[in-house]
Amino acid sequence: MSEHLTRGVNCATLTPMDERGAACIDLLVVHCRWLIDAGCEGIVLLGTTGEANSFTVAERKAILDGTIEGGIPPQQLIVGTGCTAIGDTVELTKHARSRGVTRCLILPPFYYKNVSDAGVVAAYARAIDAVADPALRVYLYQIPQLTGVSLGPAVVAALRRAYPGTVAGIKDSSGDVAAITELCARFGAEIDVLAGSERYLLAALRAGASGCVTATANANAAQICTLYRKRDDADADALQAAVSVVRAAFEGYPMIAALKAFTARRTGDERWRNVLPPLVPLDGAKAAELLASVSQ
Amino acid sequence: MSEHLTRGVNCATLTPMDERGAACIDLLVVHCRWLIDAGCEGIVLLGTTGEANSFTVAERKAILDGTIEGGIPPQQLIVGTGCTAIGDTVELTKHARSRGVTRCLILPPFYYKNVSDAGVVAAYARAIDAVADPALRVYLYQIPQLTGVSLGPAVVAALRRAYPGTVAGIKDSSGDVAAITELCARFGAEIDVLAGSERYLLAALRAGASGCVTATANANAAQICTLYRKRDDADADALQAAVSVVRAAFEGYPMIAALKAFTARRTGDERWRNVLPPLVPLDGAKAAELLASVSQ
Repeated sequence: MSEHLTRGVNCATLTPMDERGAACIDLLVVHCRWLIDAGCEGIVLLGTTGEANSFTVAERKAILDGTIEGGIPPQQLIVGTGCTAIGDTVELTKHARSRGVTRCLILPPFYYKNVSDAGVVAAYARAIDAVADPALRVYLYQIPQLTGVSLGPAVVAALRRAYPGTVAGIKDSSGDVAAITELCARFGAEIDVLAGSERYLLAALRAGASGCVTATANANAAQICTLYRKRDDADADALQAAVSVVRAAFEGYPMIAALKAFTARRTGDERWRNVLPPLVPLDGAKAAELLASVSQ
Repeated sequence: MSEHLTRGVNCATLTPMDERGAACIDLLVVHCRWLIDAGCEGIVLLGTTGEANSFTVAERKAILDGTIEGGIPPQQLIVGTGCTAIGDTVELTKHARSRGVTRCLILPPFYYKNVSDAGVVAAYARAIDAVADPALRVYLYQIPQLTGVSLGPAVVAALRRAYPGTVAGIKDSSGDVAAITELCARFGAEIDVLAGSERYLLAALRAGASGCVTATANANAAQICTLYRKRDDADADALQAAVSVVRAAFEGYPMIAALKAFTARRTGDERWRNVLPPLVPLDGAKAAELLASVSQ
């Protein structure tokens, strides 16, 4: 049985980079500190928001190394290590463990579509078996709108049965409140169910979720953390509504480019606007429109 | 301007592997020779059918090296080198060029969805610029049902304009005959338009396509090559119909596992049944049903 390791608001951090796409570790460390200071309980490094799959394995290792060397405690990190090739997933997960990271957020292999539950379970099993580290805690990463692979309750149950000490949670970014409610009902007592957006944080917490992993915390960490802290207060629903307005503003734009445009403005560092193809930076007019809408 | 380098029937070869997922180069080389002897003009190594994205960069390099060392001429290969990380695409493409391979079939980055045409063009441009090799010939890989990214005529036109000597073709696996007909009309005189299935090979050839890249040639190479050779004969439509019946039989099953089950039976080597997760081998009953249907 696993403990509940992950609670509260976890930010899926952006990865700043220069115009050639090389990660700017200096900016990343400062940003992670800012997120922790704003109240985030943890940082998801190299998730979808962090453009993880646009970096090579060597680059991903260097980003983690630099973040830890910059002073961000590995205990506060959840590291995305899931790739299309299980060999890469294993290498990145072992590397994270070697740096003191316990929690890895692992995508299922995402090139093939219409794969069977048995195939998805086999992929996770092969990775966990190859890492072979009892201290590893795996968070399943449900984001079918990008992977084309859905981790239904049958997959979670099979992996929990096979690896009860290792499979410690699931991040559900499907955006489906009914699905996360079902996950909480079936697994919430045993593992960390994490909402993939703060838009339904309160609903998820009331259903038994442990917290959330969210992209928008890159721009709105303090307000989201306040919502989490005041989740049992009388004004919680009003706070949720306010948080959701900001979320909706960002959802009107390509999210990663929009959050980077926001962060460039907040920090005054234009490097923050860079993204790796196939993403493109938010153009000037759209950035101005977004910044006006969220600063009201 | 590019020459028409690729014609006829090109097989997207399976990648045989042991039960741990390590590629069996010995089997692969024998299989490639069998395909060439059956009349295939070329072999696509490490495409979708070859489970390319389930292998690490190092494994992909070793598979190409072993295939060439086994005697398959690099001039007869088209190598899949497209990854989610442009850095990996660059590394694999440079490696293929270093081994004498001219033609690379390059997926767009396929993790993010709803990306812009400008982002897709930027991704290819960054890869081509980084490889910086005038002898490279890039085949764009249109397979939106797996990538979630569609390479429309505007993307092809933009890349042709920017890299007229390098962008030499497109493989269209969308299965949309209207789309390939449009590609042929707009680009067929300049670049190789390759049908992604022999199911519409004759229609594509009549529209101006140069040939096809097909998975089913792993099982049915000789018949498909006969169709190509007799494309102008009176019985071409009857041959197309016969070829399409075999294609349809395989399309009733998970294609890669089905082709591997067929090849295991044909060669008597059970290693051929292995696939990498998230794929699963065809179970015994389904394999027997398939084998009965295609041996009638």
